[in-house]
Amino acid sequence: MGPRWKGKGFKAKALADPMSKVVLQLQSSLNQSNCEGFLCGCSVLLSVQAEQADLLNRSCFGEAMVTAEKDKQWFQLSLEEGFYLSYALKCLRIVEDKCLKSDEQLWQCMKSRSTLFPYFYKAYCHLRMKNWVVMSGITYGADFVAYRHHPELVHSEYAVIVSSEEEEGGANNRLRVWSDVHCATRLCGGVAKALLVLDISRNGHSADSLSCLESYTVKERTITRWNPEQCREDHTMVESENGAKEEI
Amino acid sequence: MGPRWKGKGFKAKALADPMSKVVLQLQSSLNQSNCEGFLCGCSVLLSVQAEQADLLNRSCFGEAMVTAEKDKQWFQLSLEEGFYLSYALKCLRIVEDKCLKSDEQLWQCMKSRSTLFPYFYKAYCHLRMKNWVVMSGITYGADFVAYRHHPELVHSEYAVIVSSEEEEGGANNRLRVWSDVHCATRLCGGVAKALLVLDISRNGHSADSLSCLESYTVKERTITRWNPEQCREDHTMVESENGAKEEI
Repeated sequence: MGPRWKGKGFKAKALADPMSKVVLQLQSSLNQSNCEGFLCGCSVLLSVQAEQADLLNRSCFGEAMVTAEKDKQWFQLSLEEGFYLSYALKCLRIVEDKCLKSDEQLWQCMKSRSTLFPYFYKAYCHLRMKNWVVMSGITYGADFVAYRHHPELVHSEYAVIVSSEEEEGGANNRLRVWSDVHCATRLCGGVAKALLVLDISRNGHSADSLSCLESYTVKERTITRWNPEQCREDHTMVESENGAKEEI
Repeated sequence: MGPRWKGKGFKAKALADPMSKVVLQLQSSLNQSNCEGFLCGCSVLLSVQAEQADLLNRSCFGEAMVTAEKDKQWFQLSLEEGFYLSYALKCLRIVEDKCLKSDEQLWQCMKSRSTLFPYFYKAYCHLRMKNWVVMSGITYGADFVAYRHHPELVHSEYAVIVSSEEEEGGANNRLRVWSDVHCATRLCGGVAKALLVLDISRNGHSADSLSCLESYTVKERTITRWNPEQCREDHTMVESENGAKEEI
């Protein structure tokens, strides 16, 4: 399907300002200021100065919150975003009840808030590492949506569902029956996205300790509806059983 | 949402020719000819004369099959359609391997072909009894779709998902997570249908014997997306906690 840019010249704009660079700038800026986030329910809250607020917005981490404070801007991060900045990029220290959390403590903590956290984080991290912008997919009935660049420039290309064949009922109980697969692919088709299923395999490791995370692997699959009319108009040639080519 | 008729005067046309009457005509015609269906995989096949073919088409049971036979028209019914004509309307005898099946034998047989048959049949029967036309919902990622009258006259009004709270993982593993609910309601909204969830309760009875079927109950729920903008434009009045009416 390819990216759908929102305006003329937006592709060039994105190429001139790669997401990897923006994230590096954010990482260095947060590191310099020794930034702290507060774990609060299923969110991580952090307050930043104007420059960092701009970088967070440009790299699409968290959502700016409306508060009465004038000189500080508060941001609300999801568990995955918070853990990614803290553990993968090492640029955010996360605190709960005035107590700084180690990576391992944070992993345990987030796991206890959301049983699917290990799968969702692995999927989030997998896409972010490849410089995709990853945001919540809830409005499209998915776990995430993935953008090639900032959502101001381009529409999201993938609706992402996180799955695990090892887990009873799947990581998140999705795509177990045909009607659900049809539902997801048809909805994705309607909003010009591809359905990307990230199948997380724990390879026999538990989620007990953070160290297991590195052993997890991710299998990517895209699913699209087969449109017989489209194929017909393409005059696709298929090979029939007796080896003769046939137009369908 | 209400019915969306496909043309001018189609509502009057439907009112003049109620579905209940067409089904009665089909019932009496099949009874007169002592019609037999053949259980074959997950379908029931039957061959009929022109008059019955017309009645099957008008009442939306099964699909006409393309064959080389000139004087007979073959129809392919789903398990639910076959069992409904046989058990509920008593106008079709069903045969497998030249052996006529009793109601109980047929129940066992269909259950063995599809583990969800008891739930799906209860849902199918529940809607048909109320004179809804019920067809496969697979293209909308649902179990069934329900039409107020013949699909030539009106668009389907409901996408139906069959559910059971008693069953581990649900009757069909759907709507267990928010992303699936969002997916289904958003898709339904896009194709101007309401999502109808039929929750089948076995009330402690097993599916072992056909006699249990009468003890099953059906709870109907429709789910729609809440659209805050729409409510805002409607100037909907809500009562706040202290009893004062407030515009949202």
